Amino acid sequence: MVVIGGDAAGMSAASQARRLKDPGELEIVAFERSHFASYSACGIPYWVGGDVEHREQLIARTPREHRSRGIDLRMRTEAVEIDVPGQRVRSRDLESGAESWTGYDKLVIATGARPVRPALPGIDAAGVHGVQTLDDGQALLDTLAGLEGRRAVVVGAGYIGVEMAEALLKRGFEVTVVNRGEQPMATLDPAMGRLVHEAMEGMGITTVNGAEVTAILTDPEAGAPGASGGPGARVRAVVTEDGEFPADVVVLGIGVEPETGLARAAGLPVGTHGGLLTDLSMRVRGYGDIWAGGDCVEVLDLVSGRERHLPLGTHANKHGQIIGAGVGGGYATFPGAVGTAVSKVCDLEIARTGLLEKQARAVGLRFVSVTVESTSRAGYYPGAAPMTVKMLAERRTGRLLGVQIVGREGAGKRVDIAAVALTAGMTVERMTALDLGYAPPFSPVWDPVLVAARKATAAVAQAG
Amino acid sequence: MVVIGGDAAGMSAASQARRLKDPGELEIVAFERSHFASYSACGIPYWVGGDVEHREQLIARTPREHRSRGIDLRMRTEAVEIDVPGQRVRSRDLESGAESWTGYDKLVIATGARPVRPALPGIDAAGVHGVQTLDDGQALLDTLAGLEGRRAVVVGAGYIGVEMAEALLKRGFEVTVVNRGEQPMATLDPAMGRLVHEAMEGMGITTVNGAEVTAILTDPEAGAPGASGGPGARVRAVVTEDGEFPADVVVLGIGVEPETGLARAAGLPVGTHGGLLTDLSMRVRGYGDIWAGGDCVEVLDLVSGRERHLPLGTHANKHGQIIGAGVGGGYATFPGAVGTAVSKVCDLEIARTGLLEKQARAVGLRFVSVTVESTSRAGYYPGAAPMTVKMLAERRTGRLLGVQIVGREGAGKRVDIAAVALTAGMTVERMTALDLGYAPPFSPVWDPVLVAARKATAAVAQAG
Repeated sequence: MVVIGGDAAGMSAASQARRLKDPGELEIVAFERSHFASYSACGIPYWVGGDVEHREQLIARTPREHRSRGIDLRMRTEAVEIDVPGQRVRSRDLESGAESWTGYDKLVIATGARPVRPALPGIDAAGVHGVQTLDDGQALLDTLAGLEGRRAVVVGAGYIGVEMAEALLKRGFEVTVVNRGEQPMATLDPAMGRLVHEAMEGMGITTVNGAEVTAILTDPEAGAPGASGGPGARVRAVVTEDGEFPADVVVLGIGVEPETGLARAAGLPVGTHGGLLTDLSMRVRGYGDIWAGGDCVEVLDLVSGRERHLPLGTHANKHGQIIGAGVGGGYATFPGAVGTAVSKVCDLEIARTGLLEKQARAVGLRFVSVTVESTSRAGYYPGAAPMTVKMLAERRTGRLLGVQIVGREGAGKRVDIAAVALTAGMTVERMTALDLGYAPPFSPVWDPVLVAARKATAAVAQAG
Repeated sequence: MVVIGGDAAGMSAASQARRLKDPGELEIVAFERSHFASYSACGIPYWVGGDVEHREQLIARTPREHRSRGIDLRMRTEAVEIDVPGQRVRSRDLESGAESWTGYDKLVIATGARPVRPALPGIDAAGVHGVQTLDDGQALLDTLAGLEGRRAVVVGAGYIGVEMAEALLKRGFEVTVVNRGEQPMATLDPAMGRLVHEAMEGMGITTVNGAEVTAILTDPEAGAPGASGGPGARVRAVVTEDGEFPADVVVLGIGVEPETGLARAAGLPVGTHGGLLTDLSMRVRGYGDIWAGGDCVEVLDLVSGRERHLPLGTHANKHGQIIGAGVGGGYATFPGAVGTAVSKVCDLEIARTGLLEKQARAVGLRFVSVTVESTSRAGYYPGAAPMTVKMLAERRTGRLLGVQIVGREGAGKRVDIAAVALTAGMTVERMTALDLGYAPPFSPVWDPVLVAARKATAAVAQAG
């Protein structure tokens, strides 16, 4: 068994396979090009923000621990070619430059995703950081430690963007988020994104929407707008069509795309979002001895019936388990996802599952949409905080299509109710009778999700 | 329309009917024997404990507000007879003693539940309190305000018992909970109840299990164990077979039973738990013009297929909505419940849904049972707190049968995931792939419920 990529999906697969087969039965080799394996990339913003003190806390299992379990994990080793007919992988030791071929009976591709990094003037300047890997996080922290200025610009207002805005605010920076979209959080419908915008402004995060970055200005060229500094030059400002935003540090949170160059070069099938296509057992379609999982694959969206790219640690871990079971001679499948995600900016919780309005339209669904205001606990109980729930239901059938939630403490994880209901194909009318946990410290007597389901039920009846 | 009982179910029914029919079409009369209507009985422990400052915060709608909406709510008026053939209700004004008959086309019985009050010597002594109604809560607060001693004994360790233990602890009392059961929380399996016991002891709440109360001692008879004081005498101690527990105040939290004397006398059908039996539209079985809802009815348990008595505000409100729709000419049904409940003692959260082991056995189910330890958030994220999840799954089919959770912040409402999965009849294997909200501040990468589902899946496979 050869594993390409030593993070969540790859090392979960290796560990699960090792549980099922001992080293006498199955040899496991894993290649990881970075300095770290098996870490929580999702935790990087909290490490940068200081909630998590030590980098090591983000590491679930060290290379040494993997090796002690009989997994030959080769760090700083990059796979550079897959020879599918020859069942072998060519890898390069990034320290020495030495290359070698390793044969496989079973191959696991877990190459993850890479941050989108637009080809802008100045993008490679010192002080411009992505935050995809622990190496990236360490580089950003090193920059922050040496900075004299306190102005940070975050490019992008998706999950990574808003989480990094919080992190930099906690580090005492004046934070400006420069966002191409109409509102922050393109994973929400605009009116819900507007609530996030307002809350971010209330926290002192300047949020600029509809702003496409055209260049990054650097110091040696001070006063020469749009000019590009070399890698040695230091960032000074972010330029958009509408203006210039001074910056001592810039964090890119524009999104990620599947890292599938190696797999494409080997002729493996990729989908419309650039991710590898697999079957339900996470085998690459058409290949019996090659599996793929994690951020480099596309996932079936159970609500729309379409493939999507959903780069999330929780999917990657599930994929790894399933691949490990398959390689180890067991049986497990990944039926797909419903598009659940949750995040926060300071005390604002943001969650969604299922389809947005535009996503529902794109697959030909007709729907009703309702929005309700409620509170996280009984109104009279201390800490009851307002929350807004938006719900989409199919016309005629009343089937739940999606839920979006913006609120404070206790809001975010309520999305799980809808995630399970979506998975089960429930109608919003059936949801109104759900027997959810109620006590004043936990919920109003009608849980906010039930309030939304009642309104959606009425809207479905009304729409006919 | 005549409504007997002016709390959650009754006034929800009246309000919903009023929304659908204006006063020209439907006259609505409601009788309430207490001083309060439409209040949150579930909030009483938090009012007693001081989390909720004013009694009025617990009142969702005042009698005046109901009247201004065209509902003739008659306070301090007790229904004393239902004449089913004559379609009329006899009521008594509790102030004047005057009685009168009121005719109905549609009758709603929402008489609630009454606390179990064992016929013990001393039970009527001053300082012995139930906490079922706002009147009860006010009487207890008056007692607490006048007390010099600081020793409180709570009889019973169910939801009300543990919530009142917290409330009295917050008021500065030394609290002893005297509990007949093997462990606190008979709504949990014993090993899970044990966790609650240990946590309560850690909070400084003395919890005595296996202790049946035999008498309540009062002051005038000091030194005469087991003697009974009259209503004027003041409580001094609670006596069990194993010993005596000094008490300046005693709170009874032994449980409640359906208040159905009036309905029984009228010949309406009650079930094995003493609650009225209804159809799916909340009509009393066999009667087209009589509805019943709230704590006085039995509810279909969707997991066991049996009727149960589940006195909870959240069901009462749903019943009221459904009854109001039916009376108002609309259509809605209550399909049943899965037995979800959540509570807390200080920072300990306690939740369950579905069946306990003994409940599963009682209906002939064979099952596997697993228990896992996990954390509420990613282990490295601040505030990650341990939680224990127990899961029951049917043998062979792997169908989820029940979940119990004991933990700290973030533990309790996770039971909703299982409540929805139970409603949908999911298998634990299907649950392992649920797309739940993940981000480090909200959950480990494997949500604790998923960890339990994985272990249960393996146990089902193992058990064959």
